[in-house]
Amino acid sequence: MYGSRSHYSRRLRVLTIQELLDEVLREIRPTEEEIGKALSIYEDIKEAVLKEINIPYPFKIELEGSVAKGTALSGELDLDIFLLIKYPEMGKEWIIKHVVNPLVKTLSSRYRTQLRYASHPYIRVLSSGVEADIVPAYWAATVEEIKTAVDRTPFHTRYIKKSLTESQKDEARLLKKFFKGVGIYGAEIRVQGFSGYLSELLIVKYGDFLNTLRNIGRWRLRQVLTVGDVDEDPKTLRLLFRDHPLIIPDPVDPRRNAAAAVSRRSLAIAIAASTFFLRSPTRKFFFPKPETLPLEALEETLRRSRRRLLLLLYGMRPGTPPDVSWGELRKVSRKVLNMLKEQGYEVIDWSVWSNDEDLAAAAIDIDEESVEREYEVRDGPRIIGQPVVSFISKYLNREDALGPWISQEGIPKVLLARRRSNPVEALKDLGKELSTPDLEVIQVTDSLEEFLSRVDVKDKGKILQWLTEAVVKTPSWLGAVKTSGSDR
Amino acid sequence: MYGSRSHYSRRLRVLTIQELLDEVLREIRPTEEEIGKALSIYEDIKEAVLKEINIPYPFKIELEGSVAKGTALSGELDLDIFLLIKYPEMGKEWIIKHVVNPLVKTLSSRYRTQLRYASHPYIRVLSSGVEADIVPAYWAATVEEIKTAVDRTPFHTRYIKKSLTESQKDEARLLKKFFKGVGIYGAEIRVQGFSGYLSELLIVKYGDFLNTLRNIGRWRLRQVLTVGDVDEDPKTLRLLFRDHPLIIPDPVDPRRNAAAAVSRRSLAIAIAASTFFLRSPTRKFFFPKPETLPLEALEETLRRSRRRLLLLLYGMRPGTPPDVSWGELRKVSRKVLNMLKEQGYEVIDWSVWSNDEDLAAAAIDIDEESVEREYEVRDGPRIIGQPVVSFISKYLNREDALGPWISQEGIPKVLLARRRSNPVEALKDLGKELSTPDLEVIQVTDSLEEFLSRVDVKDKGKILQWLTEAVVKTPSWLGAVKTSGSDR
Repeated sequence: MYGSRSHYSRRLRVLTIQELLDEVLREIRPTEEEIGKALSIYEDIKEAVLKEINIPYPFKIELEGSVAKGTALSGELDLDIFLLIKYPEMGKEWIIKHVVNPLVKTLSSRYRTQLRYASHPYIRVLSSGVEADIVPAYWAATVEEIKTAVDRTPFHTRYIKKSLTESQKDEARLLKKFFKGVGIYGAEIRVQGFSGYLSELLIVKYGDFLNTLRNIGRWRLRQVLTVGDVDEDPKTLRLLFRDHPLIIPDPVDPRRNAAAAVSRRSLAIAIAASTFFLRSPTRKFFFPKPETLPLEALEETLRRSRRRLLLLLYGMRPGTPPDVSWGELRKVSRKVLNMLKEQGYEVIDWSVWSNDEDLAAAAIDIDEESVEREYEVRDGPRIIGQPVVSFISKYLNREDALGPWISQEGIPKVLLARRRSNPVEALKDLGKELSTPDLEVIQVTDSLEEFLSRVDVKDKGKILQWLTEAVVKTPSWLGAVKTSGSDR
Repeated sequence: MYGSRSHYSRRLRVLTIQELLDEVLREIRPTEEEIGKALSIYEDIKEAVLKEINIPYPFKIELEGSVAKGTALSGELDLDIFLLIKYPEMGKEWIIKHVVNPLVKTLSSRYRTQLRYASHPYIRVLSSGVEADIVPAYWAATVEEIKTAVDRTPFHTRYIKKSLTESQKDEARLLKKFFKGVGIYGAEIRVQGFSGYLSELLIVKYGDFLNTLRNIGRWRLRQVLTVGDVDEDPKTLRLLFRDHPLIIPDPVDPRRNAAAAVSRRSLAIAIAASTFFLRSPTRKFFFPKPETLPLEALEETLRRSRRRLLLLLYGMRPGTPPDVSWGELRKVSRKVLNMLKEQGYEVIDWSVWSNDEDLAAAAIDIDEESVEREYEVRDGPRIIGQPVVSFISKYLNREDALGPWISQEGIPKVLLARRRSNPVEALKDLGKELSTPDLEVIQVTDSLEEFLSRVDVKDKGKILQWLTEAVVKTPSWLGAVKTSGSDR
């Protein structure tokens, strides 16, 4: 421990925390050339769209998102090009027929183009490494007028542009990269974390990156923050956003919780990671290097800790939106979890993975002893009276029971033999229930090797990385603290 | 099952429940000859005491207890001979000097005599199989005047004599024998059950044996019953007798709970046994035949159910009153239990035994898997915020940990290696703490054979019977129901 501390101190002598942040910023701030290239792609697309579009309503094209707000990260300059149309009656069908279809036709001659639907139809265009989404939306004069969630985006762009100074935009970049590094960046179901907009709001609130981290370290569950003019009291807001782990009313539309997507887990990680970064600031929080151990090491660790990894491999219906597939993946995993718990297996942990294209997987970490257990103790009701009698009656004539008896504490108990089952077989017995509309189970196994044999080479690296974390347990951002000494 | 039921039905055809009770009663009701013999011993002792006693206060000799009340069981006609003295100032010292010592001198020339102290000094005399206790007590005119608990006994005798009819005395005999058969007869610490007086009160309340059982079957925890003129409401009584599982104010002295000794366990057993007897009435509830299995069978059952029995053998200081030794035995067992739980062993059950002379023992039944476990999952605080950080910090740099990590549910967890210990060694490490003022630990082992090798031949039968119940778990009264079919 002293060894790693003094190593760390040596580093500190040449790099203060501010120097570290400056170094990170130099890497994540896009170059002028990079921005120039993205903006020229925007201009090209804008021109193409303007040329093609032919509708009898007022409309305008506007750049939204992080490039517009000046908070984009280098290498990730994706464009959100909004086509704002002043036609209150426009619906999905109308958009597809009068906007999306004609545009796809034109654009696909110049770009790699995909037609996309989330809750809203839009077009994705790929041009020299830049992903540009062309999103038709209703051109609302005020946020009260919006029809769907996307219509709110221009208001967000405007709010952040006017609220952040140039240097604060860099602070927002640091925070986004930090959240990304510790795995909680993004509001999508896969992450259930902090969106770009939410990160920017935190900089609006707390001024800079380090102060944001200091404040996050003091957060609690059901933390309420207000940014901008919002002046509802926390009690009302907690009633309004029942069950939301973090509550930050959107300053642009206070009826909405800008942190609605943040799960308990992401909140806990944000608090812990902020605290540990301030204790031991290292590059690894921004640029994690997830560990990958060889198969044999993973198997040995599982054996040594007497655990078994139940692995499910899913084929995914092509074109399934990630929010749908991750939602199904979580849901089916919970079903599997409950079944395993009901059958007496002790679940230590679980996690899910997907390549967001054609493959998904779930790993359920169970206690090997709970597999091997031959008898389990069942406690009867603690309420003394006839429930005790019913419990005893139930088990009295079972050949596979020892007891029942009444404990020294007066609680009826029985030692019940378990069908000594194979959890893989138990899972397979679930049959169709293991699959969902978009995920079809390909394989159920407790052998890492067997599991990997069905995974395509292109996915093997990512899968092994995911399995390594499932086995070794320490997430990579925490691993960073581990090696550099945590008790500074 | 059907087999045992039809066997049972065949029996029923020749024996109704009333015939069964009549048969039992014939065996437990003392013969006239038996009573005559006991009463003549009483007269002899009375005469000897009267001749010897020489005190300047009014006194009388009175027979109390079950022989006086007419509720004694055949073969157990013990005499409670009270020497009631009208001297309010009399204390322990005075009684020993002026009553007990002179009487012991005279009586020991005619009988086997022991000087005894519980909370009160008295003399035990043994004469042709009858145990007679000669108890000096204060002769109170009303129960309000009593000085110690024994002074209350004459009031109990009188109350039962006047409240029970001749035939109800037989009903009380059945109830006492039933409680004895299922192991909950007696207020002493070893049993924590139903005293003779309490059994008689139940017959006063419910009229007869079968009706008492039917009513007990409907009892709950913190059941309140009133017998005689008591008219406090249940709410007040529950406040008065806080934490008492069963509340039956003594009709002779309502400030006292006549059921104070009854533990949760005894209450639960009373309810269950009453219900099961009414479902499947058999002799075995009155005359249990506890099973004794050979050592090999016990070991095999333990192995099969993956359990380990930790056995402690104690030498007992000669003359320790049973209430003291059983109290210490329970207390030290709980200490051992807590230590084992703290170290991660799963305790399935425990029980204690003593021959009430020189030997005591404790058996703690633990899950073999909890001994072999190499890693255990520790959950961190569920409160999201800095407690999560503290938990992570605590385990972050431990070489023997996998993780820590934050679960899908947002709870910090760690897999922690256990020192793979031997529970017997862990117990031995407790050293002196395993012993008490009156019990000295002789042996700590998890081998039945080793344990038995240190037990004297005279105790082996009883010890094996106790161990059989500890291993097979079903108490003998429940075993009786098991074989005769429980769902009739």
